Amino acid sequence: MNEAIMKKQHAPILAVGNAIVDIIALTDDDFLQKEGMNKGGMQLLEDAADAARLYERIGPATEISGGSAANTVVGIVSCGGQAGFIGKLGHDDVGAIFAKDITAAGVEYVPCYDPEERTGNCIILVTPDAQRTMNTHLGATRHLLPEDIDPERVAAADWVYLEGYSYDAPSGPACFSHVADLIKGTDTRLAFSLSDAWCVERHHDELLAFIDDHIDLLFGNQIEIEALTGLKGEAMLDAVAGMASEVAVTFGEEGSVVVSGTERIRVDAKKGISVVDTTGAGDLFAAGYLHARQLGGSLEDAAMNGTAAAAEIISHVGARPEQPLSSLVPFRGR
Amino acid sequence: MNEAIMKKQHAPILAVGNAIVDIIALTDDDFLQKEGMNKGGMQLLEDAADAARLYERIGPATEISGGSAANTVVGIVSCGGQAGFIGKLGHDDVGAIFAKDITAAGVEYVPCYDPEERTGNCIILVTPDAQRTMNTHLGATRHLLPEDIDPERVAAADWVYLEGYSYDAPSGPACFSHVADLIKGTDTRLAFSLSDAWCVERHHDELLAFIDDHIDLLFGNQIEIEALTGLKGEAMLDAVAGMASEVAVTFGEEGSVVVSGTERIRVDAKKGISVVDTTGAGDLFAAGYLHARQLGGSLEDAAMNGTAAAAEIISHVGARPEQPLSSLVPFRGR
Repeated sequence: MNEAIMKKQHAPILAVGNAIVDIIALTDDDFLQKEGMNKGGMQLLEDAADAARLYERIGPATEISGGSAANTVVGIVSCGGQAGFIGKLGHDDVGAIFAKDITAAGVEYVPCYDPEERTGNCIILVTPDAQRTMNTHLGATRHLLPEDIDPERVAAADWVYLEGYSYDAPSGPACFSHVADLIKGTDTRLAFSLSDAWCVERHHDELLAFIDDHIDLLFGNQIEIEALTGLKGEAMLDAVAGMASEVAVTFGEEGSVVVSGTERIRVDAKKGISVVDTTGAGDLFAAGYLHARQLGGSLEDAAMNGTAAAAEIISHVGARPEQPLSSLVPFRGR
Repeated sequence: MNEAIMKKQHAPILAVGNAIVDIIALTDDDFLQKEGMNKGGMQLLEDAADAARLYERIGPATEISGGSAANTVVGIVSCGGQAGFIGKLGHDDVGAIFAKDITAAGVEYVPCYDPEERTGNCIILVTPDAQRTMNTHLGATRHLLPEDIDPERVAAADWVYLEGYSYDAPSGPACFSHVADLIKGTDTRLAFSLSDAWCVERHHDELLAFIDDHIDLLFGNQIEIEALTGLKGEAMLDAVAGMASEVAVTFGEEGSVVVSGTERIRVDAKKGISVVDTTGAGDLFAAGYLHARQLGGSLEDAAMNGTAAAAEIISHVGARPEQPLSSLVPFRGR
């Protein structure tokens, strides 16, 4: 089959990541401290019983489909793009919610199940300063295997997007290598989001080698890039510039910097937003950014679109857009 | 047992109503029209398969515990009061979510199950004008029976609160009569919310007789009170004044009027609120109102508190408070 025809059959941006339903509850700093949680970070609850016990202790909650890379592809479609997702569910009500929401959002998703496991969930505790502290039970999504990653969909994509969180799964490293093998020698580019500073620390040397060898576009916030490079400020930006041809670094309310060789493009964050919940800010920055790049936008166009998408998501609870991002992102193609 | 001691064992406000989890999705007027829905109303989906088919057609959704009277008791606790709830669940994940959320909110709730049925849900479609159109599958909550209503908890309450929606269940009328019998000759007062104009029309004569015979405090919005009385404007207020000793009528952004005999107390709605989703506005008005009355507040105190509680709920998605109402209601006891 001719490559141009094959590309049309599947979405041009394909994400591989954790299929997770978020359980979001408001809390305060005292609760985080009593539970011994790292504020702003993500901890894994390997045991389903631990996740269930934490659920009993939190306040009233809202359930919304989540997952970092899944939020990103939903954001890309909301921007007006096309995207696909690969991630694993359990055969349960929560899995049905995830499959329904991502499909209803317009993402190309073929449910993939581990019938022995329950669907993954993430208990997100939001403090009054809008920071989120996450407690993830991976469940079924921990069992994604290289053979679940459809070579045809990878071959059809212009971009494949991976999340750092999925490296925590037993076959996570094998899945990453499998994707890198599949795109070797093709013009498909590989994007990667670091996800979390603790995740970077858990797998530092392996991730550094993988990025160096395979990644074209790297996303991370200041703390994650500091953890990756062991440096701060301009030295950090110079160091990360050597790791991938394009690196987008977000600095919260200080805006973002795109690093490409010796180029540095700085974009301010949106002002005057009432910040309710920062869950998904990085995921949606990546959505706006990737969508613009896929449409042929410049690095600056991409950072501007990422900034606009992130601004929408932090103005309400949850990491899935409540307004069509297509009306909010400034760059919509040439 | 001495009555004063008995009152202390249980909450002073007890609601009997539908135990429902809300599935909230954003939509547009075209979708409502295509589906033949009455915008702003509530329709019953008796068949679980119909509810499942509608769920497949809607966009990405958020799941939050709901139920009209259940929202009200959660609001009362958020105001700083104590409240209990009686409603029936299925033995499933969604029922576990409902039980967890209402208990975590601080409401006195003893789960009560129909193991043959699934937990009730309400698909709420929110249009860009912030109006909600509801599609309820009652499931297990349709099977609440008079024997599920604990006489001791009714006897201990200063107020029992009923919702019109629960009259739709096969044993709804029997449950209403049972509550009326239990409080006969006691000083427990009975409050009732009309819920929905179509609900009033479905059971018009029976509800009118029940209100006339048993209700001390009636809640309804303009459309519901018009449906009940068949009148509009001042004639409507005069007519409803004869039905209960105290009637609180809400007029959306026009504020509210409390009617008691020849007395008319008007309170303006809060100005300058960015209205996102009006789901729960009536439920939370009733929460603020009942809490103030239970603390000995005047009719005006009650209407002011109801207005403040409703203003919080319409500023975000969902009918459960995101901020403690205790910091927002002006009357907190004498």
